[in-house]
Amino acid sequence: MKLTISRNELNEAIQHVSKAVAARTTIPILSGIKIDADDRGVTLTASDTDISIQSFIPKETPDKTVATIHSGGSVVLPAKFFVEIIRKLPSEEVHMEVGDRFQTSITSGSIDIQLVGLDPEEFPILPVLEEDRVFSISGDQLKTMIRQTVFAVSTNEATPILTGVLWNLQDDVLKFVATDRHRLATSSVPCEAAEDLRFSNVVISGKTLGELSKIIPDQDVLVDIVVAENQVLFKLDNVLFYTRMLDGTFPDTTRIIPTSFRTELVLGTKVLSEAIDRAYLLSREEKTNIVRLMTTDSGGIEISSSSSELGRVQEQLAVDELKGEPVRIAFNSKYMLDVLKVVDSEQMFIGFTGAMSPIIIRPKGDSSLHLILPYRTTN
Amino acid sequence: MKLTISRNELNEAIQHVSKAVAARTTIPILSGIKIDADDRGVTLTASDTDISIQSFIPKETPDKTVATIHSGGSVVLPAKFFVEIIRKLPSEEVHMEVGDRFQTSITSGSIDIQLVGLDPEEFPILPVLEEDRVFSISGDQLKTMIRQTVFAVSTNEATPILTGVLWNLQDDVLKFVATDRHRLATSSVPCEAAEDLRFSNVVISGKTLGELSKIIPDQDVLVDIVVAENQVLFKLDNVLFYTRMLDGTFPDTTRIIPTSFRTELVLGTKVLSEAIDRAYLLSREEKTNIVRLMTTDSGGIEISSSSSELGRVQEQLAVDELKGEPVRIAFNSKYMLDVLKVVDSEQMFIGFTGAMSPIIIRPKGDSSLHLILPYRTTN
Repeated sequence: MKLTISRNELNEAIQHVSKAVAARTTIPILSGIKIDADDRGVTLTASDTDISIQSFIPKETPDKTVATIHSGGSVVLPAKFFVEIIRKLPSEEVHMEVGDRFQTSITSGSIDIQLVGLDPEEFPILPVLEEDRVFSISGDQLKTMIRQTVFAVSTNEATPILTGVLWNLQDDVLKFVATDRHRLATSSVPCEAAEDLRFSNVVISGKTLGELSKIIPDQDVLVDIVVAENQVLFKLDNVLFYTRMLDGTFPDTTRIIPTSFRTELVLGTKVLSEAIDRAYLLSREEKTNIVRLMTTDSGGIEISSSSSELGRVQEQLAVDELKGEPVRIAFNSKYMLDVLKVVDSEQMFIGFTGAMSPIIIRPKGDSSLHLILPYRTTN
Repeated sequence: MKLTISRNELNEAIQHVSKAVAARTTIPILSGIKIDADDRGVTLTASDTDISIQSFIPKETPDKTVATIHSGGSVVLPAKFFVEIIRKLPSEEVHMEVGDRFQTSITSGSIDIQLVGLDPEEFPILPVLEEDRVFSISGDQLKTMIRQTVFAVSTNEATPILTGVLWNLQDDVLKFVATDRHRLATSSVPCEAAEDLRFSNVVISGKTLGELSKIIPDQDVLVDIVVAENQVLFKLDNVLFYTRMLDGTFPDTTRIIPTSFRTELVLGTKVLSEAIDRAYLLSREEKTNIVRLMTTDSGGIEISSSSSELGRVQEQLAVDELKGEPVRIAFNSKYMLDVLKVVDSEQMFIGFTGAMSPIIIRPKGDSSLHLILPYRTTN
């Protein structure tokens, strides 16, 4: 392999695939990035066996030559050093040449780097997926749905299926669900897919979705999603992102979401968010994060928390709408803050069905829905 | 105590003194901030017994009323919560009132906070210093001198005196010295002090100087420095910063700094910095951080490093001046990068007196001087 390539394009592709490099591994080849050059361009691949990312750098773009391939070939280079040194090269052009026993020479300006390369034959082979079950979604929508649900996945490895987000595609609606048994987050978008494409059992690790989010570019693009036997492939412009589905059955959560409420509240997101944040400051000293919400006689609400050592905070909030029975409820303020952080709309609906029943939060003007179980307290 | 105070001024004073609040302490009173109100204004004090900071909020500034003191008095409030809640209050005015058993009520807008206060009589009393040994220095210069030396203090608690920076005032020059026995950093400024004011044994903890730096405002101010028996007091506009001197004798480092060199090098700071940074990427994989510098036949230098597992980096650099014998020397690249980070001038001088002798780095156009001991390597 011998080639000359633009540093910026190489660097961008490296940044993409580096998210799949195994951080701690006993298998040396997995801590590398595979580089393949052929007459179409250069392909980088990294894999920790759960996630695999491939990024293709075409030889030419409409306005310039990106890479000149003098001879094709493959090599695996140590990722950690490779990622950082390419980013820190001063010149715009990088020359790479693989010699005997995968010894790789990288030169750029007056810099000469000799790297111990590894045999590309040892690198894991990416799965070949049947591409008959494919649908598309806007990158922006996908990122929003991930952001609105992924914080609610469980961090408890004892229930691995709950560390993932459930994907459900039915009747032209794509829906995400995440829960750690104390709270639940869902988000949906209309999604045009082939008529016979429907699924309700695809669960993808929350951590993986976080990495996927970082790769989706800021300018809106369409992401093609291939759903295969036990793998999902996300196809972006020049980047392929493979992940395994989580094994297991995701709990049925449809029945725990109340649809009618005894108390209905509409108020400003920012007002509530800042008040909960202040109450949280005191509640976290008690480790429980308990904050109380109660309706007041004056038609507003009061947010309060207390700590035996420090004291008490209470605050009156005006609301936009309040209907139904008075309510007095306690909940984990950290969970509420997590929800409020991902609410983009200025106004939100909160529904209660009693002090011991789930609290439902629905931002006005988006399709997400959040559920928080209250604390059972005596006062 | 009963008062009304502007949140911004209160918040600013809290941020200043909070740097002296004891982080982990078994003495509850030290985790608090003392508030004293009298007819001049409000004074906040925090102390972890090593550092004490006092910030005064005058009742009035030329353009507005900052505080209205309805009745004077004192209380100690739990710092961690107090610092954060004041910062997060939405209204511009804060009312405070101390009741029975130091129970303190803080109200702002529709927010009502009740805090368990502590008895101010239990709070440590600040030392009363003889103010006969005083000199002044510009805050900018002081911050620069701290930045240019403090990174070189030892982190090894076995030699506590080396965790501090030596202050030396003699012949109208103030000089700082820091060393961890592997490297040394010094910085000096001309400084007009009373004729009989001279000292050579004042050692102040590097950590303390770091905190002091954060309090010195960005707009240039004059800092008055009172040097007492075993305490130093820094007087800024409305802020007093007390610290204890470190006990012990700082080693005499004057003789280890060579004054003539066998090889003299002048080159661009940025060029060297970027090259060392790249070589460091590889050297840190070997944990030693060893990077090599050698003069080349073409009148420049070569920077290189190698790792048995990964490979080798080498780079040719053009220099502005090179005089004397050829040199080939190895050093800890992390130490060199630490120096290069605090060099503001575009050009720097490096002097060598042999492969086993100290390397001297002097930025062109400032008064700092840095010394790094080389590694004794065989190749």
